[in-house]
Amino acid sequence: MIDKQSRVPLYAQLIDIIIEKINSGELKEHDKLPSERELCDHYQISRTTTRQAMIELENEGYIYKEHGKGSFVSPKTYTQSLVKMYSFTEEMKKLGKTPKAKILSFYSKPSSSRIAKYLGLVEGEQVYEMVRLRLADDEPIMYETTYLPCKYFPKLVKEDIEKSAMYDVFQSQYNFSINSAKESFRAVSMGPVEAPYLVNDIGSPAMKIERIAFSQDRVLEYTVSIARGDKYVYTTELK
Amino acid sequence: MIDKQSRVPLYAQLIDIIIEKINSGELKEHDKLPSERELCDHYQISRTTTRQAMIELENEGYIYKEHGKGSFVSPKTYTQSLVKMYSFTEEMKKLGKTPKAKILSFYSKPSSSRIAKYLGLVEGEQVYEMVRLRLADDEPIMYETTYLPCKYFPKLVKEDIEKSAMYDVFQSQYNFSINSAKESFRAVSMGPVEAPYLVNDIGSPAMKIERIAFSQDRVLEYTVSIARGDKYVYTTELK
Repeated sequence: MIDKQSRVPLYAQLIDIIIEKINSGELKEHDKLPSERELCDHYQISRTTTRQAMIELENEGYIYKEHGKGSFVSPKTYTQSLVKMYSFTEEMKKLGKTPKAKILSFYSKPSSSRIAKYLGLVEGEQVYEMVRLRLADDEPIMYETTYLPCKYFPKLVKEDIEKSAMYDVFQSQYNFSINSAKESFRAVSMGPVEAPYLVNDIGSPAMKIERIAFSQDRVLEYTVSIARGDKYVYTTELK
Repeated sequence: MIDKQSRVPLYAQLIDIIIEKINSGELKEHDKLPSERELCDHYQISRTTTRQAMIELENEGYIYKEHGKGSFVSPKTYTQSLVKMYSFTEEMKKLGKTPKAKILSFYSKPSSSRIAKYLGLVEGEQVYEMVRLRLADDEPIMYETTYLPCKYFPKLVKEDIEKSAMYDVFQSQYNFSINSAKESFRAVSMGPVEAPYLVNDIGSPAMKIERIAFSQDRVLEYTVSIARGDKYVYTTELK
């Protein structure tokens, strides 16, 4: 409860109470918070105090406002550092999450000029095109389309990648290790193809990530990912 | 024109024609392209050929489609590498663009707990809060809110930053050089505050970039930027 004798400002006490409810799970992602009026009545504090707490909580990313609807608990985000090479599977494991990939399609086809250019192939050379939905603890967070040159991965089948992480398959079955990648990031709107798999809300914020991954100088992979904007923060260090 | 005797596929010829029109400026950003039917009639080619060219042009990012309205020329994007420290002013100059900053507000005030935390201050210490609109060749592309500790920049006034790039002022007037920064990137929707300055379209894709910049171990700056999603691509290299 709020302690009016404390030297801690009232709004800061209210912030702590709400953060504690979020951390304990009493308030869950996207739960609606009580209205400012309800908070005033419940904690016997002024509207100004309540408003200051809500502004800080929003600034800190704990809550978000929807116009005319009230305040809601923000979904937890994943922070992906861009300083070193990373893989979805490894990152999720580090966070204690269970990574899963649902393969939506997998087949080989001749490369278009665009895909050939990215992969360093001649237009028309065969590539695998694989679409995967990435999940963390069964929550879908990324929609990925991957292109791989068939010549480096003969006999690759869907089941290989269903069983193991893709980079583990590269290593164990083909003796390729991915040691560098170039990535680009762009803010986009969720499109009609991926939205139904991710948030079912066309036009919501999304990050479009393109990766070209190398084993030495050889391009092994080109992937375009659409990641939920409400789920991912990317960080980097500039020197 | 299309050369039906050429060994270059017809769709590739059409692509070249359209790219040439974009590069020469005959087709400008957001200009509507002729319909597929019009292209077929004009160049005497099949619907399939036209469609294939349009798909490739869209994949390559030269054009974008609006449902029910047709295809349009994509705006040119800026590619910002995240490998080294960068500044808006310097990057724009490198591209031959004229960078401009319009200061929308500039004043000093006591820091909130959040801002104090970012800047390594005690809550309530004075900070400058400055809101700037960033333009390249007079086109607005970023809306930035910057916080600076007053104690490191006594007597800083709006006019200093209107006259020179901010980091140049740090260097020339205060002998501080920014030598590293931490940045985070997040895909968001353009909000009601910044949209009128940038694209006048609330909900369009935007990148939210937060920067904490250091001179040695001292935090000199915390900036939150909202960059137009249609204008910026960020790239990095992972090792």
